[in-house]
Amino acid sequence: MADSRILLGVLGGLGPMSTVYFCELLNRHTAARCDGDHIDMLISSRASTPDRTAFILGESKNDPLPVMLEEAHRLERAGVNLIVIPCNTAHYFYDGLTAGCHTPILNIIRETIVHLSALHVRRFGLLATEGTVKSHSYHRLCEAAGLICLTPTEEEQRTVTSIIYNQIKQNKPVDREAFRHVTDNLRARGCERLVLGCTELSLLKKEGLGDEIFVDSLDVLAYRTIKACGKTPIGFPASFETEANR
Amino acid sequence: MADSRILLGVLGGLGPMSTVYFCELLNRHTAARCDGDHIDMLISSRASTPDRTAFILGESKNDPLPVMLEEAHRLERAGVNLIVIPCNTAHYFYDGLTAGCHTPILNIIRETIVHLSALHVRRFGLLATEGTVKSHSYHRLCEAAGLICLTPTEEEQRTVTSIIYNQIKQNKPVDREAFRHVTDNLRARGCERLVLGCTELSLLKKEGLGDEIFVDSLDVLAYRTIKACGKTPIGFPASFETEANR
Repeated sequence: MADSRILLGVLGGLGPMSTVYFCELLNRHTAARCDGDHIDMLISSRASTPDRTAFILGESKNDPLPVMLEEAHRLERAGVNLIVIPCNTAHYFYDGLTAGCHTPILNIIRETIVHLSALHVRRFGLLATEGTVKSHSYHRLCEAAGLICLTPTEEEQRTVTSIIYNQIKQNKPVDREAFRHVTDNLRARGCERLVLGCTELSLLKKEGLGDEIFVDSLDVLAYRTIKACGKTPIGFPASFETEANR
Repeated sequence: MADSRILLGVLGGLGPMSTVYFCELLNRHTAARCDGDHIDMLISSRASTPDRTAFILGESKNDPLPVMLEEAHRLERAGVNLIVIPCNTAHYFYDGLTAGCHTPILNIIRETIVHLSALHVRRFGLLATEGTVKSHSYHRLCEAAGLICLTPTEEEQRTVTSIIYNQIKQNKPVDREAFRHVTDNLRARGCERLVLGCTELSLLKKEGLGDEIFVDSLDVLAYRTIKACGKTPIGFPASFETEANR
């Protein structure tokens, strides 16, 4: 790559479809008149990375961190200057990854919380994998920002988990009524925004959720990535305009 | 990657959107019950690769081959076992690429012609960039297979070129009526099938063309790639069934 351009590294495959959707977001939301205006990137989609949630919950001893580090090093050796990981659950391993790499890694959870703060949100609901919920990846960063993070009840969480693992990851139709039941309850508990804190759920938004209450962590990561690569983001939801001069 | 798995290399960014769509096809059409059932891949999306058609037509001295070779070598050093290029125009440089690499590279044009032969097609129309049309990339391989490749008139080709460069590559609405005018004329000239021989035009099909006369070269490449990676292809158009036991 020319020295003046950033080569973006995408540590992906977690899952494969949301990695593709993330790259689609980057391309669709970068101001471009021709191919050459887009971001140069190298995308590792290592679908065979051990399941993150199963390891976090202690259901599997198959640690994904060494595999993720191997892929991060593959990207580093290939010359990337910046790494992004379009998967929230994988950020449980963020400290281990940054300790083992010399390339900066954008943090999707931190960036989402910064975005919520910019929107003056005080209380939000988190829709995510059980791995992300139980490991308190969002909660820990929320406390410092003075934000309150509410999560679904245990029964509701089982619904969310099933939508992610048994429906979206298997390319099957999503039970939108069950999803709405969960989100209605979070609204009733006073959530000003609902965060799609699992990039499989971003695929649900891709098909249309049609409601400004949702903040998609993958949108936030795409927006920040485009800016970090020196490009101009276009066509993001209106909530991003409040950040235009950030 | 585990030794037993293939690491697929995608030489992409030509353009960036069709690379993303190709990866989406791979994921959507691989039989999978969980992330780990999908293909492991490394995708180079080097958007800044010089324009292929401009060089082929002599309008630019900016040769894309050295840049494509650099990316192919980047993929090879990173450990890929097989390379695919989801761009027809770039196959003008196929011989130069294979001469400069030690990794096998699937040829989208050759595979599309083999597919047409399996369908017993004798005469087809080619919808592609001016670079692909004028360099006779399809015609040369057709002769050996006994197939007749018809191309649009010069005026019609200008329409196709404009759809690719001024509409699809710029994320603008496509003049579908103008496109239909071109395809109607190719039908009238006796084409049994119309090949989407430019992966930007595959994006048009993604939005829906709803007609079995079209054979998408990107579908063919995705089908062959999934098989080459030892996976089971599912959900392809009916025309692929004739090849199931190939």
